[in-house]
Amino acid sequence: MRIVDIRETAIPLKSNLKNSSFDFSEMTTSIVAVITDVVRDGRPLAGFAFNSTGRYACGAQMRERFIPRILRADPATLVDGRGDNLDPARVLAAMTAREKIGADAERSIGIGTIEVAVWDAVAKIADKPLHRMLAERYSGGRLPDKVFCYVGGGWYWPGQTIADLKDEMRRHLAAGYTMVKMKVGGLPIGEDCRRIEAVLEVLGGEHRLAVDANGKFDRAAALDYAKALKPFGLKWFEEPCHPLDYALYAALGPDPFGVIAPAAHNDPPATIGHILEVQREHFPWP
Amino acid sequence: MRIVDIRETAIPLKSNLKNSSFDFSEMTTSIVAVITDVVRDGRPLAGFAFNSTGRYACGAQMRERFIPRILRADPATLVDGRGDNLDPARVLAAMTAREKIGADAERSIGIGTIEVAVWDAVAKIADKPLHRMLAERYSGGRLPDKVFCYVGGGWYWPGQTIADLKDEMRRHLAAGYTMVKMKVGGLPIGEDCRRIEAVLEVLGGEHRLAVDANGKFDRAAALDYAKALKPFGLKWFEEPCHPLDYALYAALGPDPFGVIAPAAHNDPPATIGHILEVQREHFPWP
Repeated sequence: MRIVDIRETAIPLKSNLKNSSFDFSEMTTSIVAVITDVVRDGRPLAGFAFNSTGRYACGAQMRERFIPRILRADPATLVDGRGDNLDPARVLAAMTAREKIGADAERSIGIGTIEVAVWDAVAKIADKPLHRMLAERYSGGRLPDKVFCYVGGGWYWPGQTIADLKDEMRRHLAAGYTMVKMKVGGLPIGEDCRRIEAVLEVLGGEHRLAVDANGKFDRAAALDYAKALKPFGLKWFEEPCHPLDYALYAALGPDPFGVIAPAAHNDPPATIGHILEVQREHFPWP
Repeated sequence: MRIVDIRETAIPLKSNLKNSSFDFSEMTTSIVAVITDVVRDGRPLAGFAFNSTGRYACGAQMRERFIPRILRADPATLVDGRGDNLDPARVLAAMTAREKIGADAERSIGIGTIEVAVWDAVAKIADKPLHRMLAERYSGGRLPDKVFCYVGGGWYWPGQTIADLKDEMRRHLAAGYTMVKMKVGGLPIGEDCRRIEAVLEVLGGEHRLAVDANGKFDRAAALDYAKALKPFGLKWFEEPCHPLDYALYAALGPDPFGVIAPAAHNDPPATIGHILEVQREHFPWP
């Protein structure tokens, strides 16, 4: 039981979508394959992962540091106690040898992508869905019947009309989604509000809408948007400003402008810092 | 006035030094040259920088994203209002186009290294020392006559004896340093204390010593070391634990074990989070 190779390649997203702040014309992502010596159906079993659609490929770190450390390690040090599967924690420890403690963010994407691919391999080796394997290890085996999921859509693109945006939303509903997040901040506030009105027409009263400014706004613009968004009863207002502008988040939350739905009026502010808690409240996970 | 090329190369540190947690045998650093069309003494004027001696080279990010964005930019958008020098803020803005807001740490080293090289070029173009140029721009022109500086030494290396360590410290004193920082955590606590005693013998009473654990310790070890270090009257105890372990830093500071010198017994804890303030108190900068 060993990892025989780890391969990374960068692929372009080839997208002309835009959020409030930038387009994705240069964007790339790293695809990783962790190839094992386990053979299934005559082929080597491999775990796969990609890093993100918004953070650029980071293969150089992997190829120069993380992958060679894993491949140089004694395979016996990378498997679990019974030797019948890879141990992701041990692979992680091998990857982080000779990495300075702290500043983990600088390497988190490269390391995390390999780690996800290792987990994919672990589940395939065990011949179980990964969510079941994780539940057995970390959640007493409790398995959800279903999991809340929303679609991140409503991007800006060249030549887009309001009719295009409504068509996109109809496709999301047809695909089974009950909640949508759309971009704001890429157009003047009045036009963004018209986009929101149009989307809400399609979603209807029983559906929910959140908006995402991707960190664009300064204080004045964030407060202006929060006030303008209030009448729409939105689910949340994501990343109005730079994620480290704690003072502005404090001014915006907990929900001083009634941006989020009344049922969520608890401690969590209406911004992404605590958005997972807000989601849990409305869509409790098991 | 324009940047004609930016070049990066990774060089190995080729070092067998060790801190508490890892050796530097794999360590590399990025060397950057920002080459301008200004000619001095018959040669193109260039600004230089290197990234760190502890964070690995990061040239792939520079070559794939930051450098092409600068070289593609209209040169007129990268100079100051009078057009007689580069504007580092405008070069920074060009570098960060299409970078997602937030997660800045992931790219801070690559961007920062280029930025430092640009500042070096700016000072050379102005034909002034950079510290004078920065003082004129940001500090009302007040220039220090001298600046406090300590040497980060006292590393571990293979075969090192206490006599070697004392010889190293004598070299630092001979070079004019009045304060030294040495590593701890790479040997059992008793041996580390004997190293400290030996170094203090060399430094003498009028000199000062700080120690650096490079984030190695868990809670129990950090507290053990803090107690053991107390009798030495050290200047500070740097990075006893992971830099994000705020709870443990709170338990260690403000200086509950009297690790730092009595004169520094103010608000700043005896740990690196506020070490700059402690330094300023003892060695006030202008």
